[in-house]
Amino acid sequence: MVPHIFRYEISPHIFVYLECKGILYSSQSRFQKIEVVESLDFGRMLVLDGVINLTERDEYVYHEMLVHVPLFSHPNPSKVLIVGGGDGGTAREVVKHEGISRVQQVEIDEEVIAISKEYFPSLGLALDHPKVNVLLMDAIEYVRGLEEKFDVILIDSTDPVINQSEGLFTVPFYTDCLNALTEQGILAAQVGDTYFETNLVLSVVTTLKEVFPLVRIYLAPIPSYTLAPYSFAFCSKTIHPGAGSRFSLFGTGFQARYYNTQVHQAAFALPEHLKRELEK
Amino acid sequence: MVPHIFRYEISPHIFVYLECKGILYSSQSRFQKIEVVESLDFGRMLVLDGVINLTERDEYVYHEMLVHVPLFSHPNPSKVLIVGGGDGGTAREVVKHEGISRVQQVEIDEEVIAISKEYFPSLGLALDHPKVNVLLMDAIEYVRGLEEKFDVILIDSTDPVINQSEGLFTVPFYTDCLNALTEQGILAAQVGDTYFETNLVLSVVTTLKEVFPLVRIYLAPIPSYTLAPYSFAFCSKTIHPGAGSRFSLFGTGFQARYYNTQVHQAAFALPEHLKRELEK
Repeated sequence: MVPHIFRYEISPHIFVYLECKGILYSSQSRFQKIEVVESLDFGRMLVLDGVINLTERDEYVYHEMLVHVPLFSHPNPSKVLIVGGGDGGTAREVVKHEGISRVQQVEIDEEVIAISKEYFPSLGLALDHPKVNVLLMDAIEYVRGLEEKFDVILIDSTDPVINQSEGLFTVPFYTDCLNALTEQGILAAQVGDTYFETNLVLSVVTTLKEVFPLVRIYLAPIPSYTLAPYSFAFCSKTIHPGAGSRFSLFGTGFQARYYNTQVHQAAFALPEHLKRELEK
Repeated sequence: MVPHIFRYEISPHIFVYLECKGILYSSQSRFQKIEVVESLDFGRMLVLDGVINLTERDEYVYHEMLVHVPLFSHPNPSKVLIVGGGDGGTAREVVKHEGISRVQQVEIDEEVIAISKEYFPSLGLALDHPKVNVLLMDAIEYVRGLEEKFDVILIDSTDPVINQSEGLFTVPFYTDCLNALTEQGILAAQVGDTYFETNLVLSVVTTLKEVFPLVRIYLAPIPSYTLAPYSFAFCSKTIHPGAGSRFSLFGTGFQARYYNTQVHQAAFALPEHLKRELEK
């Protein structure tokens, strides 16, 4: 391995530099450039088209918050659809919930799955869990006209600026997702940095509000993504976040490193400037 | 001005690079190197001994959270002592509270005050407010044997790794502060990054717990400081955070950009890993 610096942009004039031991793997799949980079302070990193997708050190924050906020808000989640999430981290968190009967994962790029199983086994091997079924196809096509209904849909995609994910941030796709949800169904999606990408966040929320009766933003710090709190969207027909009756079960054997009931509620407290922007 | 890159360390192998238009001011005071740097994405920055003390873009998060969390938790704050805070941002937020009768500020370095008034007038000029009295001396000496009592003490210092602030993070200093507080008094202090400086945070909390009956950590993201949530300590003899009866007054004309009542409560929800570390 050749030591090098991995550099990424936070805003047009702010950059983060990570000292790395080297690149463990690099290839171009049909859909994207996939790299596995060994960094000194974030550990091993999965990099897609030059953007950090996850790091060993802080992936738990992202995956726990994407999964447990909707799952603990739902009264009895049984069937979960994961859009993207080929690394397996989202599936790993979903199957921690005892009532889950079926996890349908739809990932477009099988190379991400293979690489994750090899380089990030604590995430990738979750895809071999008996409740998890992986389908290799475009999720946009999968949800179009889908008859099966899910309790929770988790959108664990790359950012909308990255080509193959753009269609996942549109009214037609969200409408198909809404139709694939049960009455008490919840959709959660990663959105973006609330401080340096505020316009992106506002635009995703505007699109979601065209489709979902209830749309709320919640926050978590993901140090390897950006300098400011990262945001997720919580969308439903009727269910409010944190209202689930299973909420009280937390702590009885359930293990998490970032998530807990206080963090769940607190994640929905938005800074005054962001609240005002979202209310405009 | 000569364009340049301002580089700072997040952890031993992670660095942030800010593109800057140039340095507006640079001098060595009796106590520290003082620079005013014009950055492109954080605006004007006050840099002390090479460390960002504040930026125009996000100083409001730091000052609002250091001030309004203790002040809105106190039932009727009247007299406030500010340790450090020569830039004036803390005083600016304190005098927003109508019941304040006297703000005693103790700053060791008069050059910081002069520079702030010239380069950051929206902060520095708060020190000319009729309720604010500025004393130029070492706060450690000021609080030793102090007979006057304060409702709130705010420690707005540089980090403990920086020489002249080290004594502000010790049992003798905290004991003098405790003695200078009324029965319902509250002390709040900036502590550090919870993710890359966890040991520093734990060590400050341990020291505070030797002195104060109630010590709680609360969080806020300050993008120009670090990649992870920054922490503050809330310390008191009896008062719990958020318990103040004035809390409900918020919103009646009171203006803030980050702080609101939900943010106040949410700031005390700690990630599971940090909660466990603090309980050890």
